[in-house]
Amino acid sequence: MASAAVPEVTAGRILVTGAGGFIGRRTLAPLTRLGFEVHAVTRRSPEVPVTEIHTTDLLDTTAVEALVTKVRPSHVLHLAWYAEHGLFWEAPQNADWVHATCALARAAANHGATRFVGVGTCAEYDWSDGGSKLRLESDNIAPTTRYGQAKARAHKLAGDLFGSGDFVWARLFHLFGSDEPQAKLVASVIADVLAGRMPGLKAAGAVRDYMAVEDAGVALAQLAAGSITGAVNVASGEATTIGAIAAMIAQSLGRTDLAPQLGEPGDPPIMLADVSRLRLEAAVAAPSTLRALLARCCQDTRVAN
Amino acid sequence: MASAAVPEVTAGRILVTGAGGFIGRRTLAPLTRLGFEVHAVTRRSPEVPVTEIHTTDLLDTTAVEALVTKVRPSHVLHLAWYAEHGLFWEAPQNADWVHATCALARAAANHGATRFVGVGTCAEYDWSDGGSKLRLESDNIAPTTRYGQAKARAHKLAGDLFGSGDFVWARLFHLFGSDEPQAKLVASVIADVLAGRMPGLKAAGAVRDYMAVEDAGVALAQLAAGSITGAVNVASGEATTIGAIAAMIAQSLGRTDLAPQLGEPGDPPIMLADVSRLRLEAAVAAPSTLRALLARCCQDTRVAN
Repeated sequence: MASAAVPEVTAGRILVTGAGGFIGRRTLAPLTRLGFEVHAVTRRSPEVPVTEIHTTDLLDTTAVEALVTKVRPSHVLHLAWYAEHGLFWEAPQNADWVHATCALARAAANHGATRFVGVGTCAEYDWSDGGSKLRLESDNIAPTTRYGQAKARAHKLAGDLFGSGDFVWARLFHLFGSDEPQAKLVASVIADVLAGRMPGLKAAGAVRDYMAVEDAGVALAQLAAGSITGAVNVASGEATTIGAIAAMIAQSLGRTDLAPQLGEPGDPPIMLADVSRLRLEAAVAAPSTLRALLARCCQDTRVAN
Repeated sequence: MASAAVPEVTAGRILVTGAGGFIGRRTLAPLTRLGFEVHAVTRRSPEVPVTEIHTTDLLDTTAVEALVTKVRPSHVLHLAWYAEHGLFWEAPQNADWVHATCALARAAANHGATRFVGVGTCAEYDWSDGGSKLRLESDNIAPTTRYGQAKARAHKLAGDLFGSGDFVWARLFHLFGSDEPQAKLVASVIADVLAGRMPGLKAAGAVRDYMAVEDAGVALAQLAAGSITGAVNVASGEATTIGAIAAMIAQSLGRTDLAPQLGEPGDPPIMLADVSRLRLEAAVAAPSTLRALLARCCQDTRVAN
């Protein structure tokens, strides 16, 4: 593997929206450590000291214009969005936040900001193949929810409105944290295990990338300070199954008796190859889809029988 | 993504062992198309014309020496191994085939061969993490079966014995084909569905890379003709679950009523990010393991309650 390049880090005055939220509050300490003067837009008191707290209503474009005129940030990290657990997927508020994101990007560009980090989602991608490959930032965008569609639109529209400045679109995958809503996976499994119940899982075999929200906060701060532009997946790079997460939690809490059974012992849940050498160095082309190849195999078997 | 380099292709006189086997017979036509003069070691009549068929006992090192002296191959593609379904994992014969592979590599080098392609397995890798990342060729080797251990030993020993020649070690992942043993996954699901039975699956959620054996044959032929050296994963690059394979087969055979239920509708079985940009371009470090992070989250939740 190539070793990671040391990125150019440029701190300045950063406006952080959603700064009191699940993710936002984890960006404040890393941003401060990176040398930023942090202006936090939030109605909650941050747990770490920041330069100034603003309680601006971000859906009010006049107020946003006034805020940006006053702060004159060099950087914007925009996390605010409608995020009510379970409701945000199809909420009409998603459209309001596309508009608010555009207004913020335009105001920031007009008042001298040179770098804008917006937050997108894995739900922007086309998953109709069932997720058979790791998602690259350049892959097809085909969101099926209002939330995913709104984020994809915000990426394009706000990116255009930010003009010649550096625009970054951080696509978050699955996050967890100790203060997540009780209905979310990790919180609900911890609650079940602490109560002595077998965790109730809807799709134990589903394969996901779960990142600790603290790591997402650090990554977003680094993206704000860095020089990369365009879409960037923000995820751990570690694949796991929902069932394996529940088992790890049960083990961590000393209740292995409440760990879900994970198939055959000794049989790894996931066995996948990195095929970069085969494709790029040996230039062996990708085969047809598995679906097409299985159909041919079924046909051949029928003919032979 | 970088576009695939066009590799230098060099055909010559190739000795193919295991040429009548499940994989080997699929290498003969591609090798011929690439311009090779094919000497096939097999006791079965190949389905495609080859230059010469040899019925040499490869466990007899004297016979192997005589064969190589006679044929004087420029290339060797060595597929022969003990492969009895279900038995090969722990069979004592694995040790015999390490020895045979070494004898063949030494004889080939002594008689002018310049390129040797041996066949390894995904079972050489350390899977104790449950497979949470795509396996790179440079990843830890820690086989837990006699078969995996023997293949890993053959790689090292035969590679050393082949000396200064080009030595390639093709690590195959999961393969399927219409003539595979009835007990293997695809054949058994096809048989179940054709008989009108629900497929019996042991680990429906297990995530695997299944490659059509015909594609493996083409890939091995290209590796023989190419210039890449060292270990190379040979796999499709497409992730799937055992349950999804059964569902695709049932659909392909027009029996959607026999397709296993795959969790929530609309919920992709796999959602994973390529994090190359984040790691290499944005230089954001990899987080701790999910296990450690979940343990911390459990601790934080307990403290908060």
